[in-house]
Amino acid sequence: MYLALILCLLKFVSANTNEVFFQTKYFDAPLDHFNFRTTNTFKLRYLINDTYWKPHDGAPIFFYTGNEGDIEMFANNTGFVWETAPQFHALIVFAEHRYYGESLPFGNLSFTDPKYSGYLSSQQALADYVSLIKYLKDSYNVPLNHNPVIAFGGSYGGMLSAWMRMKYPSIIQGALASSAPIWQFTGMVPCDAFNRVTSSAYTTESVQCAVSIKKSWGYFDQLGSSDDGLKWLTDAFKLCSPLKEVKTLKDWLNDIYVNLAMTNYPYPTDFLTTLPANPVKALCKHLKDSNVKREELLNNLFSGISIYFNGTGSEKCLDLNKSDDGNLGTLGWDFQSCTEMVMPMCDSGTTDMFEKSIWNIKEVSDDCFKRFKVRPDPELAELEYGGKKIHWATNIIFSNGLLDPWSSGGVLKDMSSTAKAVIIPESAHHLDLRFSNKADPVSIHRARKLYKKTFLAWIKQHKEQRSN
Amino acid sequence: MYLALILCLLKFVSANTNEVFFQTKYFDAPLDHFNFRTTNTFKLRYLINDTYWKPHDGAPIFFYTGNEGDIEMFANNTGFVWETAPQFHALIVFAEHRYYGESLPFGNLSFTDPKYSGYLSSQQALADYVSLIKYLKDSYNVPLNHNPVIAFGGSYGGMLSAWMRMKYPSIIQGALASSAPIWQFTGMVPCDAFNRVTSSAYTTESVQCAVSIKKSWGYFDQLGSSDDGLKWLTDAFKLCSPLKEVKTLKDWLNDIYVNLAMTNYPYPTDFLTTLPANPVKALCKHLKDSNVKREELLNNLFSGISIYFNGTGSEKCLDLNKSDDGNLGTLGWDFQSCTEMVMPMCDSGTTDMFEKSIWNIKEVSDDCFKRFKVRPDPELAELEYGGKKIHWATNIIFSNGLLDPWSSGGVLKDMSSTAKAVIIPESAHHLDLRFSNKADPVSIHRARKLYKKTFLAWIKQHKEQRSN
Repeated sequence: MYLALILCLLKFVSANTNEVFFQTKYFDAPLDHFNFRTTNTFKLRYLINDTYWKPHDGAPIFFYTGNEGDIEMFANNTGFVWETAPQFHALIVFAEHRYYGESLPFGNLSFTDPKYSGYLSSQQALADYVSLIKYLKDSYNVPLNHNPVIAFGGSYGGMLSAWMRMKYPSIIQGALASSAPIWQFTGMVPCDAFNRVTSSAYTTESVQCAVSIKKSWGYFDQLGSSDDGLKWLTDAFKLCSPLKEVKTLKDWLNDIYVNLAMTNYPYPTDFLTTLPANPVKALCKHLKDSNVKREELLNNLFSGISIYFNGTGSEKCLDLNKSDDGNLGTLGWDFQSCTEMVMPMCDSGTTDMFEKSIWNIKEVSDDCFKRFKVRPDPELAELEYGGKKIHWATNIIFSNGLLDPWSSGGVLKDMSSTAKAVIIPESAHHLDLRFSNKADPVSIHRARKLYKKTFLAWIKQHKEQRSN
Repeated sequence: MYLALILCLLKFVSANTNEVFFQTKYFDAPLDHFNFRTTNTFKLRYLINDTYWKPHDGAPIFFYTGNEGDIEMFANNTGFVWETAPQFHALIVFAEHRYYGESLPFGNLSFTDPKYSGYLSSQQALADYVSLIKYLKDSYNVPLNHNPVIAFGGSYGGMLSAWMRMKYPSIIQGALASSAPIWQFTGMVPCDAFNRVTSSAYTTESVQCAVSIKKSWGYFDQLGSSDDGLKWLTDAFKLCSPLKEVKTLKDWLNDIYVNLAMTNYPYPTDFLTTLPANPVKALCKHLKDSNVKREELLNNLFSGISIYFNGTGSEKCLDLNKSDDGNLGTLGWDFQSCTEMVMPMCDSGTTDMFEKSIWNIKEVSDDCFKRFKVRPDPELAELEYGGKKIHWATNIIFSNGLLDPWSSGGVLKDMSSTAKAVIIPESAHHLDLRFSNKADPVSIHRARKLYKKTFLAWIKQHKEQRSN
C-alpha cells in the first residue's frame, strides 16, 4: 500500500535519454509577502529529490529558481543539477514561479484583472523561494543556517538566482546565474544589441545565410503588397490558413531566428521544439547563396525553417498562430514585461540581418494598459536590483554563451572577487545547465568544472561562517 | 510675494539651543511597491535642506531613514547630520516613515483594519525611501548614480539604515546605524538581555539604587493587596486618579526605568520628555539606601521619578495614562510589533532589578489578533534581513552605547572589513547622532571623527565605482 502510494508520487521523465526522478509537491505560499493585508496562500508547485541528500552533514540544497514556464520543462532541461547533486550529497529542488505552470494563485482568473494578476512580481517570487527553503529546512528538521543553499537558474531563472543571492545572502550561499540578462533594461545596454548578437550567430555560421535573411524582408514586402503575392507565400510556406498580412509571417520568422540562435545546441534537443544538432547551421545549409532570385531565395528559406516547425516531419502545414514556446507561460511573461521586466528592443536595420524597428515605450505602455490594465515602469528593475552598480555582489557566477542572443544583456566581466563572469564562446542559451553530452564543446566542460570548484568554496565558506 | 512664500515654507525649530532649518515637503509614494494590484499613492512627508548641497560636484545626500514617530522630532534630535552636512556639501533629507507623523496613508482609518494597516511594513518603508531618493535626484536633474547617498538612523531608524544598505546597496553607499537592535529577535539574543543591560545602567550609577528598585516591586504588591495600600500609593505618588490595580503603576515604572536608561544623556534634553543631565544619576540620588523602611523607600522612589514626569516642575499630579512618548507613534509600533518586529522580552527576576516575567508568544499573538486582526511572525525579520548571518554586509557602521538598553540587540563586533562595530562605553541611546555638546564624553568625539573619516572613504569609493 505505502509503496504504491510513493511510486505514484514519483515521477519519471525522460529527457534526451537522460533521466530525472522527482516527487511533485505543493507548498502553501503566502500570496503577499510584503504586506499584512491578507493571510491568503496559494499552491506553489515544486519538484524534489532527496535521494542523495545528507542533511545532517550540512550537505547543500541545489535550488532551481523557476522561471517563466512549467517547472517540469526546466527540470528536464537542467541536467547539470541532476548530474552534480550526487557528488555533493545535495537535495534537489525545482521551484515553480508563481503564475506559471500549475502555480496559478487564482486559476483561470489569474490574468483577468490587476486585482488577481497584481501579485505577479519578481520580488514576490523570490520571497516564495525564501519561504519554501525555510519550510523545507523545518520539515527536514535542520536549522535554517545548517545547510548552504546554492541557487541555479537559466535565463530569467538565472536573473532570479543572481538577485536572490543579492537580496537574501543569508538564505542563498551562492548562485549560478546562467545566461541571465540582468542588464537588458533601459539605459544599461543599447536596445539593438540583442538583434546584433542574434545576427552574429548567423554570420558566424555563414555570411551568405545572414545576407539571405536580410534580403528576404524586402521580398516579403514586395509579395505582401498584392493578393497574388500573398497567395504565393501561403503556398510556398505551406501555411495552414491563407496569409492576410505579410507582417504576420515576418513576425513569426523574427521569433524563429531568435529561438534558433538561443537553442543552437551541438546535439538534437526538444527544449522549445524538436530540433536537430546545430540548428542554425541546419537552417543556413539552405541559404548558401543570397544572389538567387526572389522566389528561389524564399523557397530556400522555407526549406531552412522547416527544421524548426517540422523537426518531427509530421506537420502537414505551418500554423503561424501556434505557439512554439509550448510550456513557456507567454501570458505571464507578457504581464511581467508590462510591469517590471521592461526590456527595450530595437534595430537600426543596417548593422544586422533584421529590419529596422524602434522602441516606443508610449506604444508599449498603451498596449499593456489595453491588455492587462497595467503600465510598465522601466526604472523599477534598476532601483530594485542595482542595475550596473553591483560591485558589492558576492558569490555569483554569471555565465554567458557568446552564441546566445541574451548575452547582450548579460554580465560579461567580473563584478567583484567572488561575483565572476564566465564566458563560453561556443555556447548558446544556458547550454552549461543542460545534461552533459559528448558533443559539448571543451569550453562547456571547463565551465562546469569551474562551477563545481566554486560550489566547494562556497560550501566551505558557509561552514566557516556557521562556526563563527 | 515669492520671498514670503518661501519663508512660509521654511521651518525653524530650536532644539537645545541648536537650530535646524528645513522645508517640509510631500512625496507621492506608491502605496504598494511589490505588487501591481494598485497604483494608489499617499503623501509621504519629508524635510529637506539643500543650502549646502553641490549636486553637480557629486556631493552626497545625507538621508535619515525615519522611524516610528513624527519626523520633526528626529530631525531635531539628530544634530550630527546638521553639523556634518556643511563640510560635506551634503543635501539633508529626513524622510518620515509611512504610518507615522503626518504620513498616514488612510488618515484616521489607517489602523482600523488590515485592509488599511496592512501596508505598514519595513520593506514598504525602505522602498518608499528608494522611490524618494530617485525622485529627488530626478528633480535636481542628477543621474541616479551621480551622488552617493549615506543613510543615517537611530534605533529602529538605524535598523532601517543598515537594512537599506543591505537590500539596496546600489542606492545607498553606506549607513550609519546608531543603536540599532537588529538582533533583538527570536533566537538571536536571550530575551532577558534587554532588562539586564537596563539594570546595569543603574548598578553602574549605584548598586543601592538598583537594589531599592528591586525591593520596591514586593512593597508595591504588599500595598496593592489592600484598599488602604492603594490609597496610600495614590497619595504618595500624587496620582491624578485613584489607583485601582498596582500593576498599572508597576508597568508605568518599568517603562520609565527603560526610558531613563535610554535617554541617560550627559546634558539636559527634551527628547521623550524634559530631563536633567544624567537622569539615572538624578533618580538614583534619591535611592542611596535600600535598607530604609517600605514607605520611606517608596517616597524616595517617587522623589526620584519626579525628575521624569515632572521635569518642568509644572505637573500637579502624575497621570499614568499619559503617554510620555509624545511624538512617537505607539499605535504604529504596536502594529509592527504584532507583525514583523517581534522582539521577545522576558526577565529571570533574579539577575537584575526587574520582576520575573516570561515571553509568551501565544498570548502576544492573541492580543495582537484582538487588537489589529493580525498575528506576529517571529521568523520574518530573520528571513528578510539575515539575522546573525550578515558577514556579507558592507559599508555599515553599527554604533552602540553600552549604557543603552537596546545595545542588548545591537551588533557589537565587526561583521566584515567594512561593516564595523563602534562601541561607545559612556553612551546611552544614539547619543552620537545628537548635536555636539560640551558635556559629551571623549568616546563620542572619537566616534564622530571616525564616522566622518568613513564617510570620506565611502564617497571616494562611490566616485571610483562610478568611473568604472
